[in-house]
Amino acid sequence: MATIKDVAKLAGVGLGTASRVINKSGYVSEETAKKVLDAVKTLGYVPNETARAFVSQNNKMVALFLPSIHHAFFSELAFYIEDELDKHGYKLMLCNSDGQIKKEIAYINMLKQNKVSGIIGISYNAIENEIDHSMPIVLVDRHIGEDIPFVSSDNYGGGQLAFQILKEAGCTKFAFIGTYSKGLYTEVEKRKLGFKDAAEEAGDPYAIHIEEDPIKDQISFLNMFLTTYPDVDGVFVENDFMALNLVQLALDKNIKIPQDLSIIGFDGVKTYSPLRPKLSTIRQPVEKMGRSLVELLLKRISGEKVTPAIHPVEYIKGDTTC
Amino acid sequence: MATIKDVAKLAGVGLGTASRVINKSGYVSEETAKKVLDAVKTLGYVPNETARAFVSQNNKMVALFLPSIHHAFFSELAFYIEDELDKHGYKLMLCNSDGQIKKEIAYINMLKQNKVSGIIGISYNAIENEIDHSMPIVLVDRHIGEDIPFVSSDNYGGGQLAFQILKEAGCTKFAFIGTYSKGLYTEVEKRKLGFKDAAEEAGDPYAIHIEEDPIKDQISFLNMFLTTYPDVDGVFVENDFMALNLVQLALDKNIKIPQDLSIIGFDGVKTYSPLRPKLSTIRQPVEKMGRSLVELLLKRISGEKVTPAIHPVEYIKGDTTC
Repeated sequence: MATIKDVAKLAGVGLGTASRVINKSGYVSEETAKKVLDAVKTLGYVPNETARAFVSQNNKMVALFLPSIHHAFFSELAFYIEDELDKHGYKLMLCNSDGQIKKEIAYINMLKQNKVSGIIGISYNAIENEIDHSMPIVLVDRHIGEDIPFVSSDNYGGGQLAFQILKEAGCTKFAFIGTYSKGLYTEVEKRKLGFKDAAEEAGDPYAIHIEEDPIKDQISFLNMFLTTYPDVDGVFVENDFMALNLVQLALDKNIKIPQDLSIIGFDGVKTYSPLRPKLSTIRQPVEKMGRSLVELLLKRISGEKVTPAIHPVEYIKGDTTC
Repeated sequence: MATIKDVAKLAGVGLGTASRVINKSGYVSEETAKKVLDAVKTLGYVPNETARAFVSQNNKMVALFLPSIHHAFFSELAFYIEDELDKHGYKLMLCNSDGQIKKEIAYINMLKQNKVSGIIGISYNAIENEIDHSMPIVLVDRHIGEDIPFVSSDNYGGGQLAFQILKEAGCTKFAFIGTYSKGLYTEVEKRKLGFKDAAEEAGDPYAIHIEEDPIKDQISFLNMFLTTYPDVDGVFVENDFMALNLVQLALDKNIKIPQDLSIIGFDGVKTYSPLRPKLSTIRQPVEKMGRSLVELLLKRISGEKVTPAIHPVEYIKGDTTC
């Protein structure tokens, strides 16, 4: 938490001057007063013991940043995070970063200023330089150093499992469809890696069809896949939403599913569960993930060491695989 | 905002005693001190001018309560609300009330204690008694008195429109499927009313198949509809999720859609847009609604009078109507 010394230093004034402005005692020029007040604002300085106590007492607040709550997996995750925080008397502050690092940094600064107790973050930006490794931050699907814990599902195992299921269903030509994040290694990458490694181990041919995240025109990207790889008969798609789009495009082109093309997605969100054809998918345990994010974060807030939590996934058979 | 007088009164002590405890000056018995500190906590009393200023400066926070962010329409709405609040320098505190009035009241109390600047609420509980009509609160789809503004889409017009579309498509036996909230009159009720009035005006037969919200077993409820009303050929369903469930159940029973049964939903959320058969639906302008909720709330915060905003809906033709 910032002290009056930090304020004086940033404002470029003496301690006495800073104190006079803050306590409104004695004369200070308007210009100097403005410098001090700006510094107070920038640092989030809280003027006295009582106020500090007040702030920390009211600070049972955790910020969650998401790329977009629009995405069904993220909104289900947010639901369980809020529910678990509530059980521990914490409130949730929600930030749709929409991929903007600027917005994420704003929340990291709130944490530095003690305005929130911790952060749960889903970020595909290079936030490493903004984070001090002692901060109570837990990330989803992102590994940025030993000291910042993360929660994910077993993405690598999920990729392997998807391959095995397609193989057992009789597919012979495989493909992975997904995205990559420039310069970043995310947990999501492991879905591809698990799939690729399993295919290589089995000695089977496979294609990798990827584009930088976020994909601007997903329909064109998927159409391109169908025209480029007409022989592929088993596809693993990075997430359910994209997999569902692929199912519909293929059906529109009179490709029979699963006879001609088997499709497995990833996420297993409830939002899509009533829809047909029911998508075969690798399900992430979203409730467990949400609750374990909170558990790890609360441990971090109380200063405990924690280790990443990696949750097993499971295959949910739908109508898009044999 | 609570004053030291309120604290003294609630604690059942004199003003001097309350002051001694709060300023830690002079002797007070442990028991009395506890009473005062409990009152401070209950009332969210902020001890002095500086702290008060600090709190209000940091208070650019709005609470949103939703029945559940799980619901695609609500999560899309939350996205636009957060985006618009962010433009005005406000943070969003998210509460999934999950229908619990207790949780909603907790947030209303935070507003009373000045811990948030305002509330945007989607509530199907009887919160009227908890709300003072001067409070900066804006509701979605709920009309609880002249002084509390609300934002909704034109639900009545949407119900009328759904009937007209079905009628023009050649349907002759109509039904509405939905929910009701005991003892509450919500905007959602108007969907049913608009549909019913339009059918009566046209002199056409219609059935109303409703159950109390939240429906415990939606699939049984919908199956019951299909077996009870085998002759109905045009259905308007209260929301997209339920409409999609009905589409799948009907297809499972080899009912041809739209030849034997036309189905229109309500919401028009993006989440379901890539799915087939594409649902015909009445679309609520979710982005406009989200942004106008924030606009109205900010006006309320600055003390302006506001009037409810009712947004027009539009029909989106899919594959479930002729």
